[in-house]
This record gives sequence, structure tokens and C-alpha cells, in this order.
Amino acid sequence: MPNRITKLADKAAERGLDAYIVARPQNIRYYTGSIGGSFLIVAPDSYPLLQVTVLDENVTRDQARGCRVETYSPTGLMNRLADELRGKRCRSVGFDELPLSFIDRVGKRLPEVAFRQDQDVVWSQRIVKDAGEVKVMGEAGRLADAAMEALWEKLVVGVTEHQLAAEASYAMIREGAEAHAFEFTVGSGPRSAYPHASSTVRKIEKGDLIVVDIGSTYQGYCSDITRTFIAGKPDAKRRDLYETVLRSHDATYAVMRPGAVCRDVDSVSRRVIEDAGYGPNYIHSLGHGVGLEIHEPPAVSQRSNETLMAGNVVSDEPGIYIHGFGGVRIEDTVLITRNGARRLTDFPRDFEKAIF
Amino acid sequence: MPNRITKLADKAAERGLDAYIVARPQNIRYYTGSIGGSFLIVAPDSYPLLQVTVLDENVTRDQARGCRVETYSPTGLMNRLADELRGKRCRSVGFDELPLSFIDRVGKRLPEVAFRQDQDVVWSQRIVKDAGEVKVMGEAGRLADAAMEALWEKLVVGVTEHQLAAEASYAMIREGAEAHAFEFTVGSGPRSAYPHASSTVRKIEKGDLIVVDIGSTYQGYCSDITRTFIAGKPDAKRRDLYETVLRSHDATYAVMRPGAVCRDVDSVSRRVIEDAGYGPNYIHSLGHGVGLEIHEPPAVSQRSNETLMAGNVVSDEPGIYIHGFGGVRIEDTVLITRNGARRLTDFPRDFEKAIF
Repeated sequence: MPNRITKLADKAAERGLDAYIVARPQNIRYYTGSIGGSFLIVAPDSYPLLQVTVLDENVTRDQARGCRVETYSPTGLMNRLADELRGKRCRSVGFDELPLSFIDRVGKRLPEVAFRQDQDVVWSQRIVKDAGEVKVMGEAGRLADAAMEALWEKLVVGVTEHQLAAEASYAMIREGAEAHAFEFTVGSGPRSAYPHASSTVRKIEKGDLIVVDIGSTYQGYCSDITRTFIAGKPDAKRRDLYETVLRSHDATYAVMRPGAVCRDVDSVSRRVIEDAGYGPNYIHSLGHGVGLEIHEPPAVSQRSNETLMAGNVVSDEPGIYIHGFGGVRIEDTVLITRNGARRLTDFPRDFEKAIF
Repeated sequence: MPNRITKLADKAAERGLDAYIVARPQNIRYYTGSIGGSFLIVAPDSYPLLQVTVLDENVTRDQARGCRVETYSPTGLMNRLADELRGKRCRSVGFDELPLSFIDRVGKRLPEVAFRQDQDVVWSQRIVKDAGEVKVMGEAGRLADAAMEALWEKLVVGVTEHQLAAEASYAMIREGAEAHAFEFTVGSGPRSAYPHASSTVRKIEKGDLIVVDIGSTYQGYCSDITRTFIAGKPDAKRRDLYETVLRSHDATYAVMRPGAVCRDVDSVSRRVIEDAGYGPNYIHSLGHGVGLEIHEPPAVSQRSNETLMAGNVVSDEPGIYIHGFGGVRIEDTVLITRNGARRLTDFPRDFEKAIF
């Protein structure tokens, strides 16, 4: 953690910032290891200062590394922050995210300082996972796989979407996840055509496609997996949807490596689906970065010029959605390695496993 | 929902706003009933317009009421929003939350319009729950109670915090919750002194205090309940902590009614704990509003001059935390009624039930 803060200071300096205020909770966790803490001030000639509410003081003192921990009262906060920055000859202070009213109030106390939002300082670090993060994210992936397996074992006509979601949740948390990484989707029948379907009392019927999108958090890090199941032997249309999405998913995985441009990776997935005649039904981008947040850089979309780097973790999740009929999505969380890619979620994707 | 939008327009007009842009997802859900949708534009002389991504188009068309649904592309969005507002002689447009860069870009296209963040327009509505919301929140509360009951049944020395959290999650989601309302806390032994403890592999030991803070979402609405359990017959100190917090919780509940000032309600809870000698260990405010979000207005704290109204839903959650030793918190989600208050969560709070 202290090493990460040193790099933050260096990156901020590179970008002409004399000091930096970290306020986004996931960023504070990234730099200090603490789930508490409201503001981390990295300024020249001083050991980093982490301001924390009295509520979170103890957990923060026990967890935070590489910084001084100090409690604040809401009324005294602005003066304290201004004091910390004053006298360090700061001209330009960066921050990740702060309300405009907050900047106004601190700025009034430091008229000589320009405040500038610059999230890239942080994201340029967070986008490349280090060995410790990869290990933790592998465990987050394993927990998602275990949850998918537990749900798969309970698949039967007549069970409700809620019951299936509950089985996934039970396995995931019992095995060590702190939380769901996002609201689970168990969308069956026509509901499988909603990319974000949540779960309902709907009972699984013969012939249904069932899209299951789940993920865990483990030590703060997220995983994200989607599988589509089919209730009984599918007709030709449903089989075609499944096999098309799987081909798209696999073709994409095969081109994920350092140096690949995100837009091109998205295009590979899109071409397979377009060639099968479902282009207009692929209504989202291929993927998103995953880490301390479930959606983070890099975006893997038509609008993204970013280049994949070793240490990136992204989702590979093509899908086809036909309103009123159903949908298919197959997703893994994927680590970009030095030579290619490695799946952090890996529940079977084959067509036979999907049928129950 | 359409009725809510009419009230929004009226409230905006009262505050000198000619039109209003709703962007916070929970607000869009409140006004349209849809979990999709990115921007709801309420402008004079036009039926409200809900802009949605292609990804969420179908779910939004199926769910949204009282508005036109239109998809947007990221590149065309700003022009479209400006078009919608142009020619309506708007001088002042309010919004709930939009990035500064967004306002800059729309503002450039509408130089005659002043944009103003005004969240009170929305909160003044959302803070008072209507009959339909009360019903749904009652169910969210019931789901939290069921989860607490399921966890309570599994309480035994040697079980891990994770296992207990999993039992709560399983019951909650099986019975119909869409999601956890927040990251569960199952904090045992010294960890019970962390107000936000998450859950770990720690096994319950004889003598432990165990703080369990869980909540569900149901049809988007949250519930929030905390109980503290004790592993085996407690010593005098732990008993005193428990009974003090319970007295504080009950004394507070007894004064919750329309017209009560939030600061005074907080003071009632604080006095009981101070009188018992634990004042410095009560390290947070009494409570917060609960609704489509787990923390929303009104705050029930020393800094809150707000007055409770019938239809408010707030948490009543005093606590005592002794670092290195343990903590106790007892919390219910409480509806303010015309004459007093009614608990939406109601798992037993008595001392005997807490011991296992």
C-alpha cells in the first residue's frame, strides 16, 4: 500500500499536480488497505494523512497502512484539509471525486490553489492488477464458479428464479464472499431478453432460456460470470443462439492479449454475431474492466481506443437478446497475461452442460 | 408514477425552475417505475421524455409509465437533450445530479439557460412514503426478519461469520428479496466493535458478542435490521451493554412521531447511553432515512433540524462499541405514522432471545 501511495505522488507530479486528495472509497481502500476513511491527502513533505469519521476510526486504525489516521468532525473538516495543504507551496491540487460545494469551501480557504479533477492518476494504477490483486481476484472468481455450480445443481422445471438466486448466494457467501458484486440476474423465458433482469417469482418452464449473471466480492475485489441454461432439449433457434454466443465468446477470448485494441476485440465478438444474423440483437459492448469495482476501466467497446495490458482484468460477455422470446449471454472474467489471457471464472460453457 | 411526475413539475415550478432533469437511477425508478432509463426530462408543454440506452430499452419500455421512452446514442445525447429543452422558453433548469462536464456540454448548446442542482425538489417527495411504498417496505422488512430468524436458528459456537451471513442471505433471497440492501455485517468477538464489520472466517467463541446487520431490497426498496447475539450466559458487562442499548432503542422508538425534531430524537437515545457511562462509545448518529436507498433523508442526528412527518421511514439504531472488547447495536426500520411509529422490522429484541 505505501508503495502505491508513492506511485500516486509520482504520477500526480508527472501531471503537474503538487498534491492529491483521494475520496472515492474504493480508491482509499486501494491506497491504504482500509474500508474506512473519507479523505486521503498526499502532499509534499508530509506523511500521507487519512481523515476518518469517528464511526470508522477503529477499523481504519486497525487496517490502514502507510498513512497517519486522524478523525474529523464535519464542522472542522474544511479548515483541517486547508491546514494540511497550506504552506506546502501547492499551486495545483488534484482529486478523484469531490462535490463542487466541497471544492468551493476548501478553495475559499486556499485562494492560491487550483483544484483539478484527474481520475486518470488513479486509474492508470488501478487498471493494472499486481500479483496480490490477481490472487485475490482468482479467489473471487472461484467463489462465483462455486455459486454457479450450486445453482446448476438445483436447476429443474418448476423452481423459481428467486430460489436459484438464493442457491447461488448461499454457496458464494458460505464459501467466503463478503457480498454480491451486483444485483444478481436470473432471467428465465422471455425475461432472459432483459440484460439486467434481477430475479422474480417466475417458475422455470420447459423450453426456457435462463440467463444467470452473478458475481462475488472477496477482500473488496469483484468477479462477474454469466451462463445461460436451457430447460430441456432446445429447438433449433435456441441452439443457434447459444452456439453463436459461445463462438463469439471464444473467438474474443482467443484475441485478448497485451497490445490488442479494445475496439478491435469488441469487433471480433460482434462479427461472429453479425455473421449469424443477430447483429441488431447484440445490444451492448463486449465487456468492462473488473476490480475493486464491478464496472471500471478499460471499457471493451466500439468507442474504446484503449490497448489491453498485462494485468488488466476485463469481462468477455457477448449476448443476443430477442424481445418477447429470450436471450443468451456467456461471460467470464478474464485476466490479460504477458502472452495472452487467462479466465478467472471458468464454469463449463459447453452446450451439453447448459441443458437440464 | 405519472402523478409523481406532476408533483415534481409543480415543486420545480415553486422553486423557480422551468424544467427538471432526473438522472439518479433511484429517482428515475421513483418517477417512472423503471429500473432502466438514464435521463428523465420534465419540461413545460411536453409529455415527459425518458432517454434510455439500447441496452436497457426493452425493460424500460415494458416498465416505464407516464413518459415517452426514447433510446439515445452517446454521441447524439447532448443535442437531443438540448432540442428537448429548446423553444420552451426555459430560463432555469434543475437537476438532481449530473457531472459538471455534462452541464458544460448541454449548457454550451443552450446559452440562455441556467442549470441548477436542486435535490430537495425530489427529496421533498421521496421522504414521505405513500401507501404503495409502505406496503412494499413492509415486505422488505418481513424479508429481513425472516433472514434474521434463519441466521438465529444456526447460531452455535464454532460456526463462522460467513456461514451465518450465508444463512441470512439464503432465506432472504429465497423468500423474494432481489438483493442485499448493503454489505452484511456479522461481527463477532472483538470484531463486533466495528460498526461496519463485514463477515470473515472467524468462528464464534463462547462469550462472544455478535452484531448482525442485514437488510434486503424488495421491488427496489430497502430494509435494515441489526440484532446482537451473545454466545452463552454473558458476564455483567456484556449484559449491561445489551440492556443499555435496548433501553436506548426503546426510549427512542417511544418518542418517534410526527413533529418530533430529529436532533431531539437522537438526544433521547444518547441520554440513555450517556447516563449508563458509555457516551464516548456511541460513535454514530441514531439513524437515517430508508427507502429506495439504504441511506437517504432524513438524517436522525445531532446535526439535523428536520422534523419527522407521517410517511417517513427511518432507522432506530443506537450502539455501544468498545475497541478490542466488543459492541452492541439494536436496530429496526421504523415507519412514522399519523400518531406515532410502527416497526417494519420486528425480530425479537429481548435479552433472553439474544443468548444462545
